[in-house]
Amino acid sequence: MALKFEVTKESEKTRARLGTLETKHGYIETPVFMPVGTQATVKTMAPHELEQLGVEIVLSNTYHLYLRPGSDLVAEAGGLHSFMNWNHPILTDSGGFQVFSLGKLRTITEEGVEFRSHLDGSKHFISPEKSIQIQMELGADIIMAFDECAPYPADYEYVKESKDLTTRWAERCKAAHTRTDQALFGIVQGGMYKDLRRESARELMDMGFPGYGIGGLSVGEPKELMYDILEDLVPIMPKEKPRYLMGVGSPDCLIEGVIRGIDMFDCVWPTRLARHGMVITRQGNISVRNLPYARDYGPLEEGCSCYACQNFSRAYIRHLIKANEVLGIRLTTIHNIAFLMRLMKDIRSAIASERLLEFRDEFFSEYGGKK
Amino acid sequence: MALKFEVTKESEKTRARLGTLETKHGYIETPVFMPVGTQATVKTMAPHELEQLGVEIVLSNTYHLYLRPGSDLVAEAGGLHSFMNWNHPILTDSGGFQVFSLGKLRTITEEGVEFRSHLDGSKHFISPEKSIQIQMELGADIIMAFDECAPYPADYEYVKESKDLTTRWAERCKAAHTRTDQALFGIVQGGMYKDLRRESARELMDMGFPGYGIGGLSVGEPKELMYDILEDLVPIMPKEKPRYLMGVGSPDCLIEGVIRGIDMFDCVWPTRLARHGMVITRQGNISVRNLPYARDYGPLEEGCSCYACQNFSRAYIRHLIKANEVLGIRLTTIHNIAFLMRLMKDIRSAIASERLLEFRDEFFSEYGGKK
Repeated sequence: MALKFEVTKESEKTRARLGTLETKHGYIETPVFMPVGTQATVKTMAPHELEQLGVEIVLSNTYHLYLRPGSDLVAEAGGLHSFMNWNHPILTDSGGFQVFSLGKLRTITEEGVEFRSHLDGSKHFISPEKSIQIQMELGADIIMAFDECAPYPADYEYVKESKDLTTRWAERCKAAHTRTDQALFGIVQGGMYKDLRRESARELMDMGFPGYGIGGLSVGEPKELMYDILEDLVPIMPKEKPRYLMGVGSPDCLIEGVIRGIDMFDCVWPTRLARHGMVITRQGNISVRNLPYARDYGPLEEGCSCYACQNFSRAYIRHLIKANEVLGIRLTTIHNIAFLMRLMKDIRSAIASERLLEFRDEFFSEYGGKK
Repeated sequence: MALKFEVTKESEKTRARLGTLETKHGYIETPVFMPVGTQATVKTMAPHELEQLGVEIVLSNTYHLYLRPGSDLVAEAGGLHSFMNWNHPILTDSGGFQVFSLGKLRTITEEGVEFRSHLDGSKHFISPEKSIQIQMELGADIIMAFDECAPYPADYEYVKESKDLTTRWAERCKAAHTRTDQALFGIVQGGMYKDLRRESARELMDMGFPGYGIGGLSVGEPKELMYDILEDLVPIMPKEKPRYLMGVGSPDCLIEGVIRGIDMFDCVWPTRLARHGMVITRQGNISVRNLPYARDYGPLEEGCSCYACQNFSRAYIRHLIKANEVLGIRLTTIHNIAFLMRLMKDIRSAIASERLLEFRDEFFSEYGGKK
């Protein structure tokens, strides 16, 4: 059994639930946020630092690793866990979203996607079978079906065809997947059309995947629309399978997603933000590059127990970032990941004590942003 | 007493000696190599990582910190130790060498040096008194006199005048220095002229400094010439005071410098090299970016106990560096500092057991390079 998911508590007031996800490389408590290590490294971080922050699973990108250093090389190194020295669960995406994001550099056909590398312009072709082959070589615990992600906005006909293609590709992915120590998730598409989302979910459920991604959200649409889609979609998804909202990771979306029944999230947002000197705090996000912090000798966030906050001041971190010193973005990255790990822990505690809605209100009253 | 230096063993076969240097922030075993933290951070490293590598003292740059974030700000933060969270000894240079390196951007007069900032072109003036004031604000344990560093090659008259100016500036530095918890070192200049070097040393010794830097070497001259100068100069320097060869840090120069009686060294070389993917090993320096390492799953250096070598392969580190991932240069930096810390420890052991000359021969037979 590649994956064992157990729902340990269902909230009575919301669709939120607590669960445990068991993989060959360890347990994960859900709801979980997965930091992104695009190129086999969570940017600026060493693996033991992720462990210290309580990170239980990271995501890595098939598209990037296929191009560099090559999935055959990673396989030769003993797989991604061994290559990056991360002996905990890993999830790889399918490359679908990255290839989709290339815009004019790619052509989609029934067979797959032809695209040009963003690195050197070289021509490549990824089919559902090829994506699965690469992901089997990388050897993550959870891998994703190769999908087409419709843009936003897009008209109904386009999204329907795209969703149908994603369904056919999911079937091909399933047929191509032979590693028994990996779980292959299907990805629900259907854009902002509820009926297409439901159709997509039912088609994938008929194939029977051990978990389901929800793709094609947080692509530019208003957050309310995303929440609306989730409210309609999640109730028809199987209770006993993990639900993974792809590419979503701001505090408000995490809380609102969990309330609507999501178990897993990933996003480059907290780590990318950190590299721009943006710091997540309970009182909202701040740009530590700004002048008011030049002589601020307090921590990034009052009360935070992370290494950055326990040892360094805003003034020092601002200096480092202004001076392009790597330690600066290491420290903001550590803090932002610590923040999200603590948020997910607080969310899980709030589910356990049936206080999630109160937690949301308390959080937003301080943090600001939409409920 | 700002500084206590004790020679604990003098070699009978060479001028090498073992010593301990006591400062307000702790003991240092000499001969010592000091990694450079130009902008109040040893590039890519966190302070606890330096501790783990056995680093006992770091150097930071007056010129850079004066311009950014400003020595007044550092003072307000509680001084450099507190600002960068390094509770061990720190040495600051005087800014003399950096200002000298600005070339056409600076004008030297009796009073001091007028220069334009490399950051924004703004005009500044540093005199010996100003350099000491800045260094008192920064609050390092050991600070350096403001000197003029003659270029190489330079004719006798130029170097003599420059050396005389450095002597007069040293006097002014001494008069301006009032912090009793800092030790102010004089800097011997005199270019490649032995008589000027001796004159410089005697003039400074007459003033009585608690330690002496040797500046203006390793500025482009052949290494043999530097060794020759040291052989002539060091014997007239006081035995009971630490001798610091400034800006020197390649393995061969460290060994040859210690043999000639040097106690302290600093250099950006090992950390700068690391950021270019160059790795120091017992078998010589390698560029891990090179193709032969693409599928090399061994450590950076066989037998090395550093975090990088214990946990990651050359193939992975090469991938990280090629992909511009920060972890790559973090790992090469850790290794290169670990290498030099181990080398200094080996050198100290070799002095203790009167095996330094044998150690040198063994080292060079493997490492290559000049004896």
